[in-house]
Amino acid sequence: MASADSAEQLVCSTDPEHPANLIPSLCAKFWTLGWVTGTGGGCSIKDDDLVYIAPSGVQKELIKNTDIYVLSLAAQEPPYKHRTYLRSPPRHKPSQCTPLFLAAFTRRRAGCCIHTHSQWAVLVTLLLEQDRRGAGSNVFEINNMEQIKGFGRGLGRQGNLGYHDTLRIPVIENTPHEEDLTEFLEAAMDEYPDTYAVLVRRHGVYVWGDDVHKAKTQCESLDYLFQLAVEMKKLGIPWISNVPRVAPERP
Amino acid sequence: MASADSAEQLVCSTDPEHPANLIPSLCAKFWTLGWVTGTGGGCSIKDDDLVYIAPSGVQKELIKNTDIYVLSLAAQEPPYKHRTYLRSPPRHKPSQCTPLFLAAFTRRRAGCCIHTHSQWAVLVTLLLEQDRRGAGSNVFEINNMEQIKGFGRGLGRQGNLGYHDTLRIPVIENTPHEEDLTEFLEAAMDEYPDTYAVLVRRHGVYVWGDDVHKAKTQCESLDYLFQLAVEMKKLGIPWISNVPRVAPERP
Amino acid sequence: MASADSAEQLVCSTDPEHPANLIPSLCAKFWTLGWVTGTGGGCSIKDDDLVYIAPSGVQKELIKNTDIYVLSLAAQEPPYKHRTYLRSPPRHKPSQCTPLFLAAFTRRRAGCCIHTHSQWAVLVTLLLEQDRRGAGSNVFEINNMEQIKGFGRGLGRQGNLGYHDTLRIPVIENTPHEEDLTEFLEAAMDEYPDTYAVLVRRHGVYVWGDDVHKAKTQCESLDYLFQLAVEMKKLGIPWISNVPRVAPERP
Amino acid sequence: MASADSAEQLVCSTDPEHPANLIPSLCAKFWTLGWVTGTGGGCSIKDDDLVYIAPSGVQKELIKNTDIYVLSLAAQEPPYKHRTYLRSPPRHKPSQCTPLFLAAFTRRRAGCCIHTHSQWAVLVTLLLEQDRRGAGSNVFEINNMEQIKGFGRGLGRQGNLGYHDTLRIPVIENTPHEEDLTEFLEAAMDEYPDTYAVLVRRHGVYVWGDDVHKAKTQCESLDYLFQLAVEMKKLGIPWISNVPRVAPERP
Repeated sequence: MASADSAEQLVCSTDPEHPANLIPSLCAKFWTLGWVTGTGGGCSIKDDDLVYIAPSGVQKELIKNTDIYVLSLAAQEPPYKHRTYLRSPPRHKPSQCTPLFLAAFTRRRAGCCIHTHSQWAVLVTLLLEQDRRGAGSNVFEINNMEQIKGFGRGLGRQGNLGYHDTLRIPVIENTPHEEDLTEFLEAAMDEYPDTYAVLVRRHGVYVWGDDVHKAKTQCESLDYLFQLAVEMKKLGIPWISNVPRVAPERP
Repeated sequence: MASADSAEQLVCSTDPEHPANLIPSLCAKFWTLGWVTGTGGGCSIKDDDLVYIAPSGVQKELIKNTDIYVLSLAAQEPPYKHRTYLRSPPRHKPSQCTPLFLAAFTRRRAGCCIHTHSQWAVLVTLLLEQDRRGAGSNVFEINNMEQIKGFGRGLGRQGNLGYHDTLRIPVIENTPHEEDLTEFLEAAMDEYPDTYAVLVRRHGVYVWGDDVHKAKTQCESLDYLFQLAVEMKKLGIPWISNVPRVAPERP
Repeated sequence: MASADSAEQLVCSTDPEHPANLIPSLCAKFWTLGWVTGTGGGCSIKDDDLVYIAPSGVQKELIKNTDIYVLSLAAQEPPYKHRTYLRSPPRHKPSQCTPLFLAAFTRRRAGCCIHTHSQWAVLVTLLLEQDRRGAGSNVFEINNMEQIKGFGRGLGRQGNLGYHDTLRIPVIENTPHEEDLTEFLEAAMDEYPDTYAVLVRRHGVYVWGDDVHKAKTQCESLDYLFQLAVEMKKLGIPWISNVPRVAPERP
Repeated sequence: MASADSAEQLVCSTDPEHPANLIPSLCAKFWTLGWVTGTGGGCSIKDDDLVYIAPSGVQKELIKNTDIYVLSLAAQEPPYKHRTYLRSPPRHKPSQCTPLFLAAFTRRRAGCCIHTHSQWAVLVTLLLEQDRRGAGSNVFEINNMEQIKGFGRGLGRQGNLGYHDTLRIPVIENTPHEEDLTEFLEAAMDEYPDTYAVLVRRHGVYVWGDDVHKAKTQCESLDYLFQLAVEMKKLGIPWISNVPRVAPERP
């Protein structure tokens, strides 16, 4: 760990865009959205080699900059079960989400990763579980929705998804210990190389992006689609539609 | 484009009612209503010849006056695909909604136009899509609702709709590129000369009004009716009722 | 009308509990609850002989003390179609709810009356409308709910309703002009002498109380019960249950 | 009662973590969550021998430190029907929840107890009531949900529940007088020695924890699970699932 003084400086800044200030303001916003109820969920930001992480077991709407963990990404070794911190607030426990956040940073070059317990995400995984007799139930699929444009095409690909594209979010099974999700998350990343999110059955979702802006807006768009999907199911409307790809005739 | 100095002055005012200050405060409010999730949706205000527009791809609850685009309406030519701006923030992209906003300003003499991705609007278009085998499914219709009184009778007509009137909002099909919606929006305006709103299938809604107050309150009333309509569908209650037009007998 | 100066003094006070300050803060709160969407709904407070009323057609979350109408109750004559105001903001229109508020003040000695367009209230009236083939559909009834204790037993009666009591809220039919509701509201008051609220079909609800506190908390409790009732209907749970009135056996 | 001066000092502190300051800020937050609508619900904190309690019949989002009741726990005698207060605001009535809060403090050594009227809690008790023909309907049970980890294993037991554990919350029948719930609450505590919460049919829920943090986050997690359970019922998804306890195969 860094010296006490330098460790404190890692999280002290008057810039509201500093990761140690952004994580608290983002988490407070996420709490109002129902994403981090009861200390659930979390958020991590990567700034060059430094990774800032919200602590475990803390009321997320009350986090302060001094609650933030910091580590050097280069100093960690997969599978990240044993981690060294530059700053580790003694009154807290490090987040069990940490190796999953690190997977997004290393395998996807993400700049930010958000984990929510959104009820809409959980309900989507439950609805897919019910359909499990058929094939393809370990992936959420929706198409012909404007909000799909809120997602990038994938790491290293230009631009965003289009209206007619099918958004696919893989679902992995939950494990008793959150850290044990890491290898399954990584396998889902390998199987779906373009995805920016992975659902966890009966648990929630991990969403990342190239930077804080993209992670946050992709997470919002996804939660919007999950809520819409649940309402569509209640109303008997399928998630995949066969709208023809030709434009409507001009008037 | 105007000189850098005069361009800045276009959006700098201490008056909270100045369009460059109103758009940020409106968008922040819209975000809490779920209308502009994940950078979706937008808002534009016309003040004489000047049109102020929220940028594309920005977190709508965080917009600042310096993020606003400004153009001269008189300097634009239909179909508005090529536009010149008096002020164009270099770090942003202009909104693809711009030609649709301009259509409301030129064809309907609107003073403000709001575009939302409200889930209630999207669900209403999905419910109408399911009914498409029958006639009349490209228009949302509801009557005998007090909130209908929140809408004007139409451009150039005095007063507002009455309780027994039927509110009709046309639905156009979505297109892969938002700008391509313009001609369909204009056709719907022609077909429904009294409407102050057009739904876009699987996308959202455009709502306008003579001024900011009317656009905002009409948009709120419409979203209220969309949400009510979805709940009515869940409960098996039809949107159109045949309540007799005579008043109830006096007690 | 009073002189310009004295009219201004009617609404100028540094006391946050002054009616001209309370109405704006209450209306802002009601807006976040979805009770006064799109300028719908309203609120009035009686202080001795003075009646303070929110204006018509104004965004309710933005009302200021200077937007408030004031009249002398003693100076008005039933049926209150022609009213004289001590203070009448020239840029606004007086609320069409005014005669209904006055009915609550004169017939029920209320100190405050709230009118909401809550969707839960509207949905309850729609569900009752569907049941109209049977008897008793012009009254909302629910029992064996703790929240029922939030209502007084009725004007001049001691204490509040009990858990096993049945709360009854009459429903009147909507009329094209809100002022025309007055006589039906009064008739419902006569028929249900203990009620503190009247539902208006496809419109909303009027709720009053002896003072601001009671009107506001009764309105909240009622909205809670309306929302619960709609959810119960979705889940197939009846509003009236026959739980035995004897206490459960002691353990 | 203590002298007027010393009674005031019991609730006057500049420390936001002082119970007399925490209760108002918690209650304001609970109001936005719909837990304490219309003066319903309440909250109490124990600090050593001192017990701080929100008053009855007060708008919970408006409580001030000077509204708080204080009593000495050691000075009270079961069944707590006759209580003496160190501080008793003359304009309020003490909360009928008091003996139930005291039961949590004495029988479970809780540091904080929260009582909500959450609609999700009420709906869960209604759904269980409908199932009453079968066995086990007086307990809410859910398993294989990540949010279950938000609960401790029980008083004197180390750690929290695991993902595969079944969370069980007993349901007691409501009584006309809230104080009469006490003995049934205590009996449920005896029958479910590990529970941190008791549901009250058609009324709400009592949730406690070792300290304010744990009571609040357990209450949030439970409300999350109640809401999820209601949505699952609408979608035909059972609350108890038989997911195998073995981890998924490694990829």
